[in-house]
Amino acid sequence: MELWYTEEWTDNVRFSIKVDKHLFSDKSDFQQVDVFESKEFGKFLTLDGLMMVNYKDEFIYHDMIVHTPMATNMNIKNVLVIGGGDGGTVRELTRYPQIEKIDMVEIDKMVVDVSRKYIDICACKLNDERVNLYYEDGVAFVKNSKDASYDLIIVDSTDPIGPGEGLFSVDFYNDCYRILTTEGILVNQNESPYFDFNAKEMKRANEKINKIFPIAKVYQAHIPTYPSGHWLFGFASKKFDPVKDQNKDSWEKLNLKTKYYNSDIHKGAFMLPQYVKDMLDENK
Amino acid sequence: MELWYTEEWTDNVRFSIKVDKHLFSDKSDFQQVDVFESKEFGKFLTLDGLMMVNYKDEFIYHDMIVHTPMATNMNIKNVLVIGGGDGGTVRELTRYPQIEKIDMVEIDKMVVDVSRKYIDICACKLNDERVNLYYEDGVAFVKNSKDASYDLIIVDSTDPIGPGEGLFSVDFYNDCYRILTTEGILVNQNESPYFDFNAKEMKRANEKINKIFPIAKVYQAHIPTYPSGHWLFGFASKKFDPVKDQNKDSWEKLNLKTKYYNSDIHKGAFMLPQYVKDMLDENK
Repeated sequence: MELWYTEEWTDNVRFSIKVDKHLFSDKSDFQQVDVFESKEFGKFLTLDGLMMVNYKDEFIYHDMIVHTPMATNMNIKNVLVIGGGDGGTVRELTRYPQIEKIDMVEIDKMVVDVSRKYIDICACKLNDERVNLYYEDGVAFVKNSKDASYDLIIVDSTDPIGPGEGLFSVDFYNDCYRILTTEGILVNQNESPYFDFNAKEMKRANEKINKIFPIAKVYQAHIPTYPSGHWLFGFASKKFDPVKDQNKDSWEKLNLKTKYYNSDIHKGAFMLPQYVKDMLDENK
Repeated sequence: MELWYTEEWTDNVRFSIKVDKHLFSDKSDFQQVDVFESKEFGKFLTLDGLMMVNYKDEFIYHDMIVHTPMATNMNIKNVLVIGGGDGGTVRELTRYPQIEKIDMVEIDKMVVDVSRKYIDICACKLNDERVNLYYEDGVAFVKNSKDASYDLIIVDSTDPIGPGEGLFSVDFYNDCYRILTTEGILVNQNESPYFDFNAKEMKRANEKINKIFPIAKVYQAHIPTYPSGHWLFGFASKKFDPVKDQNKDSWEKLNLKTKYYNSDIHKGAFMLPQYVKDMLDENK
């Protein structure tokens, strides 16, 4: 007998992983939560049938969503993470001694509980004393937060369908802008430019952010287990340009060992293929 | 009824495409040749069950394998293409007025014939008057070529299994070095760093080239229809460094419209993730 996990990247494209064991399966108040064990990717967590993290390549996503803003402004002290229930984003943040507070707002407690049990590679720093966990809706949380509370907001969300939908709205981005300090940075997972569904959402999110933040750029990473493997992040900010203001020397002095991020790829990630640039230019 | 084309990226990972029609299927003297029609990727050509080119994203591979060396040395006049039977590499080369001669050596005439019939998007310039087609073994062709015959050699090969195997050998790379001019550049498709099989071949090829050429670098592109979507190219040269010697202004003056390549990504493509750098450093 063979067991295969199959993800529908589009109606016409499938990505399948041979599975040794289906370790967990349950429906939370928000979504279907599953954990599998596989030879190629080790353990992996899926939400509503979409890959979130796996042991083989979670480092790519978490490196790029955390170190890119952190190496741009080395004075980030207060961080808000929206989503990111697996804990990987928090894990990377806790490596910075200058960070004083990390508020993590995950709507679905089951994702955190399951990650703590099965995805220890990501969840291992959720008990860091600087971390405050809130099981709340991220949209409401930012609405109720005071002005200028955070130096960095990381939106580590699912796709804009289901529980992640509000995290792609104008109201949400406006609140993010308001609760960021004058040096504030917003980073979000920004879908992919390749398949039509993801590309449409990528453009929509970027269009909204562009109208609110004076600096709004897009950067990319090779994440083979997300649809097409070509994944994008949004970098929006009130003051810092991620390339011009890259604080290479200070970041390198921290001597953090990383497997994907480095000072070169910090710059290279913002150098986009022409067709992606053209898509983003349609928004201007 | 549904028809699905499935590619085994590893023993434990599959990539599947919903197919409208199986347009062509035959076994040549060298390999299994198939052409399919699909909604997501349009028509696509496979060799021995591996994706070669498709209408949706062939531009990525061909842009990166051609424009990267061409924008490094704007005086390239004589070019040798090994493999590349679909014609996409030749098509991009014919856009440069300064190129005087393109020798294309494809071992398998069936690939060229089939591409002419079904993959016109790639094969459309094979009749350019500067193109000379040789249906021969690339290894023998370079062995029998005179010293300093070419300014650029592009190895547009399949994986190092089957007919492509000799194109990853030390003897072949030595002959390439010998038949290149003192300003000569060798570019090769260099597999992927992600799955073990491809990564091993990537390291082996790079190790060999490193010992022969004074300048040997690796660059990357997002090619979603190749295993992992993270694909690499090798850039080896006797004189030119692809980043330091990038001839941005002259290339941009040509006013070539490209969909993936641009002057930014020329640089960004050489900025590699840390784990890829570490793999390549093992070779030094």
